[in-house]
Amino acid sequence: MLLTSVADIRVLCEQDCPVVAMLRPRSGPEQWVVGQRYELWPWVPAREYLDSYGNLCQRFVIPRGEMRLAVTSEVEVADMVSVDVHAPATAVDRLPDDALVYLLPSRYCPSDAMEDQAREIVQGCAPGYPQASRVRDWIRETLAYRYGVSDASTDALRTLEQGAGVCRDFAHVGVSLCRALRMPARFVVGYLHQLDPMDMHAWYEVFVGDRWYTFDATQEQPRGGRIVVACGRDATDVAFLSSFGALEVQDMTVRVEARERPAA
Amino acid sequence: MLLTSVADIRVLCEQDCPVVAMLRPRSGPEQWVVGQRYELWPWVPAREYLDSYGNLCQRFVIPRGEMRLAVTSEVEVADMVSVDVHAPATAVDRLPDDALVYLLPSRYCPSDAMEDQAREIVQGCAPGYPQASRVRDWIRETLAYRYGVSDASTDALRTLEQGAGVCRDFAHVGVSLCRALRMPARFVVGYLHQLDPMDMHAWYEVFVGDRWYTFDATQEQPRGGRIVVACGRDATDVAFLSSFGALEVQDMTVRVEARERPAA
Amino acid sequence: MLLTSVADIRVLCEQDCPVVAMLRPRSGPEQWVVGQRYELWPWVPAREYLDSYGNLCQRFVIPRGEMRLAVTSEVEVADMVSVDVHAPATAVDRLPDDALVYLLPSRYCPSDAMEDQAREIVQGCAPGYPQASRVRDWIRETLAYRYGVSDASTDALRTLEQGAGVCRDFAHVGVSLCRALRMPARFVVGYLHQLDPMDMHAWYEVFVGDRWYTFDATQEQPRGGRIVVACGRDATDVAFLSSFGALEVQDMTVRVEARERPAA
Amino acid sequence: MLLTSVADIRVLCEQDCPVVAMLRPRSGPEQWVVGQRYELWPWVPAREYLDSYGNLCQRFVIPRGEMRLAVTSEVEVADMVSVDVHAPATAVDRLPDDALVYLLPSRYCPSDAMEDQAREIVQGCAPGYPQASRVRDWIRETLAYRYGVSDASTDALRTLEQGAGVCRDFAHVGVSLCRALRMPARFVVGYLHQLDPMDMHAWYEVFVGDRWYTFDATQEQPRGGRIVVACGRDATDVAFLSSFGALEVQDMTVRVEARERPAA
Repeated sequence: MLLTSVADIRVLCEQDCPVVAMLRPRSGPEQWVVGQRYELWPWVPAREYLDSYGNLCQRFVIPRGEMRLAVTSEVEVADMVSVDVHAPATAVDRLPDDALVYLLPSRYCPSDAMEDQAREIVQGCAPGYPQASRVRDWIRETLAYRYGVSDASTDALRTLEQGAGVCRDFAHVGVSLCRALRMPARFVVGYLHQLDPMDMHAWYEVFVGDRWYTFDATQEQPRGGRIVVACGRDATDVAFLSSFGALEVQDMTVRVEARERPAA
Repeated sequence: MLLTSVADIRVLCEQDCPVVAMLRPRSGPEQWVVGQRYELWPWVPAREYLDSYGNLCQRFVIPRGEMRLAVTSEVEVADMVSVDVHAPATAVDRLPDDALVYLLPSRYCPSDAMEDQAREIVQGCAPGYPQASRVRDWIRETLAYRYGVSDASTDALRTLEQGAGVCRDFAHVGVSLCRALRMPARFVVGYLHQLDPMDMHAWYEVFVGDRWYTFDATQEQPRGGRIVVACGRDATDVAFLSSFGALEVQDMTVRVEARERPAA
Repeated sequence: MLLTSVADIRVLCEQDCPVVAMLRPRSGPEQWVVGQRYELWPWVPAREYLDSYGNLCQRFVIPRGEMRLAVTSEVEVADMVSVDVHAPATAVDRLPDDALVYLLPSRYCPSDAMEDQAREIVQGCAPGYPQASRVRDWIRETLAYRYGVSDASTDALRTLEQGAGVCRDFAHVGVSLCRALRMPARFVVGYLHQLDPMDMHAWYEVFVGDRWYTFDATQEQPRGGRIVVACGRDATDVAFLSSFGALEVQDMTVRVEARERPAA
Repeated sequence: MLLTSVADIRVLCEQDCPVVAMLRPRSGPEQWVVGQRYELWPWVPAREYLDSYGNLCQRFVIPRGEMRLAVTSEVEVADMVSVDVHAPATAVDRLPDDALVYLLPSRYCPSDAMEDQAREIVQGCAPGYPQASRVRDWIRETLAYRYGVSDASTDALRTLEQGAGVCRDFAHVGVSLCRALRMPARFVVGYLHQLDPMDMHAWYEVFVGDRWYTFDATQEQPRGGRIVVACGRDATDVAFLSSFGALEVQDMTVRVEARERPAA
């Protein structure tokens, strides 16, 4: 399906503030960027590079005062995410080199402290997709979706203690439990069609059966209609705006719409 | 300045034909892609990757029959290319690692066979930008711009024998002579504002004074208004369409326009 | 100076255990590997790859039972680390792209929670090397070097609470404080000549004055004689042995010796 | 099998001469470097980097006068190269991204001018390994192994005209014909056990059946006992010593020996 996402952001800085933004989806094996606009008012020189996870990153200095960023992306994505309930675990020694880093614990995903719990949750499930699927169901059953419970220091252990969180927290728990079971798992940010209320969203991917599969513990059923903007070890790596100075986001509007494919 | 480039291409294939296209400019230190559209009719699944030179490459299979590709890019670029007539040569042992490959000969740039000629051309010029500048002037004085003289097998030596060629040939000669003088040089394809007649264009960059400088031996004066689409060792690396099967380009329209920066 | 390091490790696994080892120093701008041996008994097929930080990583499966790994490296290194007490801070927007990740918090380095403390410590110091140097001195004055205080879950905040730790903890505190001051900092593991007692060692590097400088808060004075084995965001990224299964290190011997450069 | 290779090289430079050497094999999926020495007399500062093909490259400046380079590598390699006479062609659109560059023509491999000949040679052979195998046999039947026929400007077309060449020329012809048949092919340099007379050696690899296979048109039968030092598009990319100044190789000794695996 063809989706258009819009992120329209107003920020205020008391002095010049360098930032790294991750707001531009990249064409890859799973999605195709048909159209795109990336606008800054006032205009400032900006540069783009790829980080070590393969994400497009935009660098610029927000000048003292207000700035508006508006990024529109028209992306061809899958109607449904891939599901394979029988996909077996990929043995660690057969993983691709670049998946190995996603087995390690990270700031918000202290998987090394969650091994016993993870094993208990998946008891009786076959290694691979069935375990990953069980983890997702367990999160849905166990955690309440609630704003205001978590902040920038909340990791997966803390979310489990609190029993509640938002999409980012759900994803950190899913990533942690899967890593604890020796399945590479990575944190993803992007857009989900018909998310309600609409906002930027976070979910995760698990490597089983020799490929990455999408999981989203905030949703009842596997759903497609996703634009991936960036992925990393956890939320630290994929902030839509990392600022190196005082910056206040005054307003952020997100829209996602399905549209017709244009005629020739 | 803000430029909009359009490449509108119609191709015909007698059977399914896999291609690699290089038609999408990338934001980088020197240019910022404000807007972009990349459309294929009929729609086919396409994927994108970065090649080893850092160029965006699009892979897809053109189905039997006709296809239209239309790529529109709105890019903020420099009004004037940088010029530093005093930039000294960068000693080979101080070059960045990734510039070294641009010292080696390549298919269309047999620089190892052009060392005597290169030294003769720059006699009396200081190493660095002055030599690179002299090379460009010499090409302009020596070669005639003429279509139909060269083909896909024409290298820089052959162009010098023939005394004529098109932008691609001029660039190959420039690259070869600079490499022969131990200055890294790379071949660039893209768009040039107000090129006449309008078409995709080729020029080259030379590494002196610790950075890359733009040179274009088809132009009387250094000119900005350039959108870089891809760079490589020579034309082999940066074809706008590499096809692995029989493919006929039936029509190709190129437009480049300056436009106003949009208001917030 | 020419150093020989030896790491001789015996491990015991109750069942086949996949591991990723980081035990092979790599030649780079700062050190040259003259000689090397990397031996495994029993012999098992092993593979090597580069991780996203540029470290050499060795993958293999340790078979059930005992294994011995012995890695000997003969490396030409600097007698003294570089010091520039006047090096200014590099502004964030002028940092190389690949240094930006070293500004972000990470698991053991929650720098976003240490900004006030960091500013207090460096009060009156000029940004750049002087601040980084002050941070190192402050750590030496404040923390006691003591074994058994920290474990695999100890981050820099906890180390400051406890007032004590080992080389790894000192380095995490140094990294965190420097990042909190907007100076990229990375965690390094390797060998230090004449360390007492001898062991593998950890220190850190800070990016100021347009390059990386070495800092080691466990030492009274800046000291050279260092073989770098790996660097990363913190200790998570550079474990000498990451095991994905139960593995017991039974014995580990480390030796570092200076030697004469061999005659031709 | 465990092989030890030695390259002992004496060069003479009339003035300081920057070089890039490719003399250090790298551990990877197919070979494991157990031991290594890389010595320079006189000692000069040297640096190492990875080129875009993944080869280890050593940079240094050879000072005016004589220098000796001695590189010893002890490498675990396969006794036999893999052979799969039934491996089918991998369709171009299913090739890994990084194999695509090995479909393009290159300086010594003008594959775009050899398509008719390639098709004629493999007439009646199934696409994939059978065609690649037929190409190798055809080269052995057609070309004579003879020194002094080719030089640094000889490409595959010229070798076919002359009907003779050395290992490098045989490999260029093999690479060209396979690319002309839309099979990615890359040029390899390294050591071959029991090569007679002993020297550095060149062969090639072809991507069929979803992986790279080794081919060597200078040998009657597929043979293992190979240490890979570097691979690239053709000989340009993998010179054991690229010099950027006048340099004379005065003497080069190569030895390859099988040895016992050392006891613990």
